[in-house]
Amino acid sequence: MSFKLTRDFIDNIRQAVRQGDVHIIESILVELHPADIAEIFESIDAHESKFILDLLEEELAAEVLTELEEDARERLLKIMSSKEIAEQLEQIDSDDAADILGELSEEIQQQVISQMEDEDIASEVVDLLNYDEDTAGGLMQKEIIKARLTWTVLRCVAELRRQAENVEKVYTIYVVDDKDRLVGFLSLKKLLFAKPKALVEDLFSSKKIISVKASEDKSAVANVMRKYNLESVPVIDLQGKLIGRITIDDIIDVIQEEAEKDYQMASGISGNIEARSSIFKISRARLPWLIIALFGGLLGTQVIKSFEPQIEMNAMLAIYITLIPAMAGNVGVQSSAIVVQGLANNTLRTDDLRNRLTKEIAVAMLNGLVCSSIVFILNYVFYKDINLGITVSVALLTVILQASIMGTIIPLGLNRIKIDPALATGPFITTMNDVVGLFIYFSISILLYT
Amino acid sequence: MSFKLTRDFIDNIRQAVRQGDVHIIESILVELHPADIAEIFESIDAHESKFILDLLEEELAAEVLTELEEDARERLLKIMSSKEIAEQLEQIDSDDAADILGELSEEIQQQVISQMEDEDIASEVVDLLNYDEDTAGGLMQKEIIKARLTWTVLRCVAELRRQAENVEKVYTIYVVDDKDRLVGFLSLKKLLFAKPKALVEDLFSSKKIISVKASEDKSAVANVMRKYNLESVPVIDLQGKLIGRITIDDIIDVIQEEAEKDYQMASGISGNIEARSSIFKISRARLPWLIIALFGGLLGTQVIKSFEPQIEMNAMLAIYITLIPAMAGNVGVQSSAIVVQGLANNTLRTDDLRNRLTKEIAVAMLNGLVCSSIVFILNYVFYKDINLGITVSVALLTVILQASIMGTIIPLGLNRIKIDPALATGPFITTMNDVVGLFIYFSISILLYT
Repeated sequence: MSFKLTRDFIDNIRQAVRQGDVHIIESILVELHPADIAEIFESIDAHESKFILDLLEEELAAEVLTELEEDARERLLKIMSSKEIAEQLEQIDSDDAADILGELSEEIQQQVISQMEDEDIASEVVDLLNYDEDTAGGLMQKEIIKARLTWTVLRCVAELRRQAENVEKVYTIYVVDDKDRLVGFLSLKKLLFAKPKALVEDLFSSKKIISVKASEDKSAVANVMRKYNLESVPVIDLQGKLIGRITIDDIIDVIQEEAEKDYQMASGISGNIEARSSIFKISRARLPWLIIALFGGLLGTQVIKSFEPQIEMNAMLAIYITLIPAMAGNVGVQSSAIVVQGLANNTLRTDDLRNRLTKEIAVAMLNGLVCSSIVFILNYVFYKDINLGITVSVALLTVILQASIMGTIIPLGLNRIKIDPALATGPFITTMNDVVGLFIYFSISILLYT
Repeated sequence: MSFKLTRDFIDNIRQAVRQGDVHIIESILVELHPADIAEIFESIDAHESKFILDLLEEELAAEVLTELEEDARERLLKIMSSKEIAEQLEQIDSDDAADILGELSEEIQQQVISQMEDEDIASEVVDLLNYDEDTAGGLMQKEIIKARLTWTVLRCVAELRRQAENVEKVYTIYVVDDKDRLVGFLSLKKLLFAKPKALVEDLFSSKKIISVKASEDKSAVANVMRKYNLESVPVIDLQGKLIGRITIDDIIDVIQEEAEKDYQMASGISGNIEARSSIFKISRARLPWLIIALFGGLLGTQVIKSFEPQIEMNAMLAIYITLIPAMAGNVGVQSSAIVVQGLANNTLRTDDLRNRLTKEIAVAMLNGLVCSSIVFILNYVFYKDINLGITVSVALLTVILQASIMGTIIPLGLNRIKIDPALATGPFITTMNDVVGLFIYFSISILLYT
């Protein structure tokens, strides 16, 4: 059904490579999908991969290269000549070629481009390199199938046959006017069932045509494609000219990356790292957050220090010192996660602050009262100190309310000034709420307990 | 380009509904996509939505219903008769109809089904209701286009024309043998360019055909479709018979949900809630985690209490009481997030424990040494107490190491015993590391400081 990579399988492949047993390798690979071969490459070293790559048919080799993960591809491209790279890039879709090229140093980029034999492909790829990789332009491919309004179905099919050679997946035919402006679309299904002499302009649909501008942010493109259930979306320039299309497989990666990014931020990891990234890369992605938390923690020590007289007067105060800020941290993360996710999937509008806040305060009151009651009762059971119980319960309720409000306002505020709201989740909000929580705890204890 | 809902727009619609101004409503809606109308329905109340729904053409109305979010749809369906619901469901894809039906009570389900006029559709939908909604069967639609090996292209196109009426999006034609077993596929592109008398068996491709079993988990289906860049995947039963297909738009929702679920778990939110969910629903999703954190915190108070003699002997020990567990919590979340994400996107294998742990310990040593050095230096600057500095630094390094190891082992262990590893992120791991961190801190302080 679907291929599953095992350690034995990899050992077999490696042994065959070491013995140069072309026959075995070919017999193993013939049944595999390019994505499977890419998965194998990610588990063996670059020279072994290169040996296998050279055995594959040109087109298959290029597809494997496209499917490969960035790190593994980087290692492989390093031991390929610019001529070899150029040959591969000519086989694949322009967006993938531009992506791979974009990963290389400028010097090698130039060498590779100069080695490309097909000048049309080379200029398309160079053109794509100009777009910011976080925009629709950076995601689009140049390979599109377009038809003119004035064509007949017969002409259309003939032209398509010519164009379709370069277009791997045909979902929709875009219809353009004589100035190349996008005016509608035509489904392949409709074309298949139409009479040969029918005109495109009588068949095509111009209602509710959805397109994106080349400068549009990639997460906006993802939202459009998801909302309207599109498997491809046309990209237009400022004049409305059709310049490319974005297919759903590239957008799935965007959706995945965005979701992972928010999650990583919330967990105190910056940058796109993975389990198999290098130790230094992982360390670098995590250390800044730990240092922020550390300085927050040090600020906390100052708060505790400044309330030392209270602690010395009553040592029992010290035992709740970790509980209160920890609860503040947890509540803050919960509140901010709801905001960040609501903003990301468009279910929360920025002008919703008042609504959100009212609801958040109601939830905080509810959960805060439950938690405070539990603490009050257990404190009485353990220590029989009603005053301490009141102090801790009131402090806990206050802290939960404060953390909810901060956790809601800060990400919404960041979003309004165009800073990624996900920054406000994770270590940042926990640490801030730790410090404020400590301060509230001691302040209330002065009022109620000493 | 793409529709943007504003408050003014909604106010206009509501006013038109209140005045019963059918003309205005129709003129506003005519240009909108079903997904846009659904968005409007989510911002107005059920009776207003019903008024608009009744004005729409049958097919459009059904599409709007499909696009609607679950909560809003529930409210709307409540004020529709079972006859009305049945009429709508007959218009849409079988998977969507089954999904909507699955949201209703069993009693209403039966009423709706008995009101369906087309018995074929009714039995298809009933059949789909039998599958677990978290499996491939629960996601698939019955509408597929299939061709037999022995057909000519001409026969194929004729049959397709008949079948395609019910199939909204045609990506691929599935080829089956005389026992309805899936044997390959044929792209529409290929069919378009083939000679009318050519046979399907000479055109179709049987190599590397990827399908999923009906019982396969939905996240496994998502991984297959993502890995192989598929826009639809055929679903087969135990005998290899083709029984349906899953399209990419349904899988995007799965990918999104899975990513959101992991993120929510990590943030201490259980269940699929959104910014617009009700106060009680949000409270219920968050409270269990807070109570776990609370009991962890109370355990922490016991740890602090048992080390009271040390604190009384040296009050300076108390000031680092919050910093150490907070750092442990942060590191634990970082480590577990990498594991959870690696398992979710298949870049980490369960048998990778040793590798992962070695790397994690190396990262912890690196980051731990940096953080410990900072604490040591700043402690000296503030308090000129070298012994305290050594105690805190050693405790911090130990706690970071411990939290990394726990953060790695626990999610991997949970995954191995088939429990969702995301459970180990967020409040659970923070709280556990808080308690253990406190214990380590005081133990080291006894060894080094008193």
